[in-house]
Amino acid sequence: MNSKMRGLKNQMVAMGLDGMIISNPINIKYLTGLTAEGTLLITPKENAFLTDSRYLEAVNSYLTIDQEIVAYDIKKLNKYDYESYFTSCENVGFEESYVSYEAYKELLRTYQVNLSESNHILELNRMVKDEEEIDSIKKACLITDKCFEYIKDFVKPGQTEKEIAFEIEKYMKTNGADCLSFDTIVASGPNSSMPHAVPTDRKIESKDIIQFDFGCKVNGYCSDFSRVLFIGEITEEEEKVYHFVLKEYEKISEKLTDGLNIKEVLKECEQDYKSIKYELLHSFGHGLGLDIHEEPVLNSKYDTKLRANMTVTVEPGVYLPGKFGIRIEDTILINKSGCNNLTKAAKNICVLKR
Amino acid sequence: MNSKMRGLKNQMVAMGLDGMIISNPINIKYLTGLTAEGTLLITPKENAFLTDSRYLEAVNSYLTIDQEIVAYDIKKLNKYDYESYFTSCENVGFEESYVSYEAYKELLRTYQVNLSESNHILELNRMVKDEEEIDSIKKACLITDKCFEYIKDFVKPGQTEKEIAFEIEKYMKTNGADCLSFDTIVASGPNSSMPHAVPTDRKIESKDIIQFDFGCKVNGYCSDFSRVLFIGEITEEEEKVYHFVLKEYEKISEKLTDGLNIKEVLKECEQDYKSIKYELLHSFGHGLGLDIHEEPVLNSKYDTKLRANMTVTVEPGVYLPGKFGIRIEDTILINKSGCNNLTKAAKNICVLKR
Repeated sequence: MNSKMRGLKNQMVAMGLDGMIISNPINIKYLTGLTAEGTLLITPKENAFLTDSRYLEAVNSYLTIDQEIVAYDIKKLNKYDYESYFTSCENVGFEESYVSYEAYKELLRTYQVNLSESNHILELNRMVKDEEEIDSIKKACLITDKCFEYIKDFVKPGQTEKEIAFEIEKYMKTNGADCLSFDTIVASGPNSSMPHAVPTDRKIESKDIIQFDFGCKVNGYCSDFSRVLFIGEITEEEEKVYHFVLKEYEKISEKLTDGLNIKEVLKECEQDYKSIKYELLHSFGHGLGLDIHEEPVLNSKYDTKLRANMTVTVEPGVYLPGKFGIRIEDTILINKSGCNNLTKAAKNICVLKR
Repeated sequence: MNSKMRGLKNQMVAMGLDGMIISNPINIKYLTGLTAEGTLLITPKENAFLTDSRYLEAVNSYLTIDQEIVAYDIKKLNKYDYESYFTSCENVGFEESYVSYEAYKELLRTYQVNLSESNHILELNRMVKDEEEIDSIKKACLITDKCFEYIKDFVKPGQTEKEIAFEIEKYMKTNGADCLSFDTIVASGPNSSMPHAVPTDRKIESKDIIQFDFGCKVNGYCSDFSRVLFIGEITEEEEKVYHFVLKEYEKISEKLTDGLNIKEVLKECEQDYKSIKYELLHSFGHGLGLDIHEEPVLNSKYDTKLRANMTVTVEPGVYLPGKFGIRIEDTILINKSGCNNLTKAAKNICVLKR
C-alpha cells in the first residue's frame, strides 16, 4: 500500500470511519494512479476497485501486488457481493461534494450501510504535494514557460485569437504535455475585460492588448499561468493598471510561506482595490494539482494556513468593461521559508514592436 | 421565452412543481444558450440567472428581452433575496443526478424550500432535437468525416499514436470545430483491444490495425465516430471480426426508426455475441447532443422507444485482449420512417497500401 492510502486509512480510524467509498476519479487517481472508470472501496477486508470489462485488462496490467488493491468486474458482482463489502461496518465515508443526490441514494441501496460525510478529507490531503507530484507540476510549468517564449515570437497583427490559442495548444502538446489544464484563453482588445473569455475570430490589431491564460498537464498534474502582451504600444491607463496588478501580485507572493494565514494579506489587497475603485471579479488564486482548481481558495473569507509543499496560483486581475483587462498569474510552490515561482516568465511590461 | 423554456414550464405544472433550480451548465445552455457559470431559477415571478461579476458583462450583452431572463450578481444578493424567490412555492424541482449531496443540503439552506427530484426531465427533453440542434450536429459530423478522409492520407508507419491524434485534433479545430467532443482515441496494434485506450508513443508498424474514435463540437453540439484502418494487410482473424462487427452495426441501424423499442434488436445482437463467444464490453450506442453521452443508452436492459429527431450513436465493438479490437460507429438521426447517417464515411474494410 502506498503512503497516501496508508495515511488515509489512519485518518479514517481517527474519524470513526470503518470503510470508505471513493467515486471521484481524481481522488482514485490520487490514491492509486488508476485512470479507469470505477469505484474504489476501502473495506476492513481489502481495497477493492470495481470497474467494468472495458477497463479490466488495463487495470490489471497496471496494478502491482504492493498496491494491495483487488480489481473486480462489476458484471460479475451480485447484490450480496455489494452488501458483503461493509458487513461489519458502522460508518462508511463517501464524498459528499462529488456524489450526486441520486448517486447517494443509490450507494445507500447498493451497499446497505450508514453513510457519513467524509469532510473533504481527500481534497484536503491533496493540498500538500509529495516530491513526485511537485516534479510533475514543475514539468508542466516548464513547458508553459517555454510556450510563452515561443508565443511572444509567434504573435503578429492579423492573426485571430483562435489561431494563437491553437498554436499554444499545439506547442504544449508536442513538447511533452499530456493535455491542457483547461481551455486556453487568448483575449485581445476589449475582449480582455472578460476574465473567462473564449478565443474568437477577432484579429489582433496594432496597439492591441492580449491577455493569455493557459496551462498544461504532465502525469495528470496542472500548470496555470497568465500574462499580457502589448502590440506596438501601451496606453497610459494600461500602464497604470499593469503596475497596480503587478504590485498586488508582489504583495501576496512576497508573503507566501509555510504557516502563514493568507487571510490578512488578502484583506489588505481588497482594501487596495477599494481605494482605487477597481472591482474585484475573482479570488486572488487557488490551489492546483490533479485538478486545475483545488483547495485552498485564496480569498479573505477563508482562514487558510499555508503549508510547505502546497502549490497555489497567485492571480490578481483588473477588468474595465468595454476597455481592457489585465491579469498576472504564476504557479507557486510554498516552502518552509518563503516560496518558489514554478512558472518563471518575466513579469515586466512587454510591448512587442516589429 | 423560447419554446424549450415554455415546454419545461408546462411540464412543471403537470409535475406539480411551482419552481425549479437548474444548476447543470449543460441544461442551462440548452434552455437559454448561456455558457456562463451560474444558477437558473424558474420562479412564479420571473426567470432569474444568478451569476457572478466575472460573467455579468457577457451575460447581459447576450440576453435579449424576448428571453425573459433577469441576470443578478450574487454578490449583491442577501439571505432574504434567496428566500424570496420561491416564497409561495410548495415544491421546487432540482436536478438530482447533477447536484451533489453537499450542494443539495446547501440548496435547502439557501432557498428554504421543499426540494423535489425532477425525474431527469431536462435530460429526457434533450433527447429529441430541434432543427437548429440537428443542424449543429450535422456540421460537427461533416467536419469529422472530412477529418477521417484527411487522416487516411496522413497516416504512415513510424508515426506515433499521439502524433496522429494531434493531427486529428488540429484538423478539426482549424476546420470549423469549437473544440473536441472528447479525448481522441488512436489505438494501434494490441492497444486497440482496449475500448478506452489513450494515445501513446507507440509507433505505427506495417501490418498494424489502427482504431480511431473521435468527434468534435459545433455550437456546443457533438459528433461521435469510430473506424479502423489496416496498414499494408489484414489478417484472416481481423477480417472475420470486422465482418461480424459490421453485420451487427447493420442489423441495428437498419431497424432504427420512430416508434421502435430498441430493446428487441439489441437482445438479438447480444445473442449473436454469445453464440460466437465474443464478450460484450459496452453498450451498442448512446444519445448525444450537448453532452457526448446522453439519454438513451442503447442497451437491452432498458425499454427505449425511439422518436424522430433523436440523435444516437450505433457502435458495436469486439475486443480480443492482447490481440486487437474493432469498433465501427456512426452518429445517426432518427426519422419518421427510418434513419440517416450523419457521419457518412464508408464502412468497408480499408487496407492502406503504399
